[in-house]
Amino acid sequence: MFATCACVYVCVYGSVYILDQFLSFDAHRPIKQVCVCVCVRHIMVIRVVLQAMDQAQLLVDNIEKYVHAGRGVIVYIAFLADGDGTEITDEAVRHSVDVLLQTKIFTHFSPEKMITRPQSLEECPEMDILIVPQASLGGKLKGRSVQFHQLVDKAVGASLYDRFCDFVRVARGVDETRVDANGAPLKLEDAPTAGGWIMYNSRVISGTFGNRQGLRFESEGPFTHAFDI
Amino acid sequence: MFATCACVYVCVYGSVYILDQFLSFDAHRPIKQVCVCVCVRHIMVIRVVLQAMDQAQLLVDNIEKYVHAGRGVIVYIAFLADGDGTEITDEAVRHSVDVLLQTKIFTHFSPEKMITRPQSLEECPEMDILIVPQASLGGKLKGRSVQFHQLVDKAVGASLYDRFCDFVRVARGVDETRVDANGAPLKLEDAPTAGGWIMYNSRVISGTFGNRQGLRFESEGPFTHAFDI
Repeated sequence: MFATCACVYVCVYGSVYILDQFLSFDAHRPIKQVCVCVCVRHIMVIRVVLQAMDQAQLLVDNIEKYVHAGRGVIVYIAFLADGDGTEITDEAVRHSVDVLLQTKIFTHFSPEKMITRPQSLEECPEMDILIVPQASLGGKLKGRSVQFHQLVDKAVGASLYDRFCDFVRVARGVDETRVDANGAPLKLEDAPTAGGWIMYNSRVISGTFGNRQGLRFESEGPFTHAFDI
Repeated sequence: MFATCACVYVCVYGSVYILDQFLSFDAHRPIKQVCVCVCVRHIMVIRVVLQAMDQAQLLVDNIEKYVHAGRGVIVYIAFLADGDGTEITDEAVRHSVDVLLQTKIFTHFSPEKMITRPQSLEECPEMDILIVPQASLGGKLKGRSVQFHQLVDKAVGASLYDRFCDFVRVARGVDETRVDANGAPLKLEDAPTAGGWIMYNSRVISGTFGNRQGLRFESEGPFTHAFDI
């Protein structure tokens, strides 16, 4: 049993003890939840927070250039690993893109009123997607501070972020020759007008990894979700 | 060992199997991560997503009344249990309020520039706190849909939300005779002006549980965090 396991962790109230022998566990204090985790191989995690967006503007040049997005979804994203050199593969990134696009999560895609049957982004190709790099999501509460040991290296994160955005653009059929690195239209006539309501336009807008992510945002209800995928 | 355990769950790739006998586990397929969880008693979870806010407006009457908040923190919150009737105690709610106020998380409280040493809300009593009820945070990915079995009952959630907001107001020293149910000042002279930059004012603004949470939001960088506390 568990022949391949490297070690056994016992978590009591969020504290982790490593056991040499599985049967040596002894609870010395009142226990509310005991988890015994046998980790065979570590896996990586893509953490996202999703919000329903009616319109938003994201800063892309660290100074004052804001790119507009219309009705759709904001995706805040961070890439986590466990520091043992686990590689996050293209396959894993593609899988998370599939989950994002295919899962029936969103109820705000009808401009007239909320719908009760959730829809996936794949069912609504005209929706905009705004992808915001958000390393802070890799934080973990520890005592009265936040640790970021789970985050992948910054250079790795930048590369993964670019790949993630690229995969989403490919899946959404965005013509990448007509947009810049942030997904903003290269031609003036393709750009949405700055003021007023922005029509859906199947855009995939991305930020710039490592830059300030200035954000203005309007929503009839953000319907915030947090998932590890 | 584990004399008090009710049952043993084995999770493989997110699927859960219940074992009658601890030693009967047999892996029939390639395993990336195996977790054996021995649950003695279930615990409840308060899930929050936090964002750095420069200013925001939250709809509070389901129609058109927006309450303004200035620099500080948006707290999206949901209350989770496991459906076995676990009671979420005032003690647990107070604990989560303490964690929220005392943990050094935030780096955006200086208006001139970002600081590198994180500060807690307790260190910055002048910051506003905008608390948005957000049941969607209780969602869990299952296949290509989202399940909400973890959420507490709506009436319980409403009561917990009100208590959470009340505890935050008490901790922040808000004079509750001078604000309405949503934390908006009762007197016109206490209200911030609608346009332009809103000065910090130690406000604790809350939404209305079960209502539409219309939100407008500006941030120099949302610095999104997701925690279970």
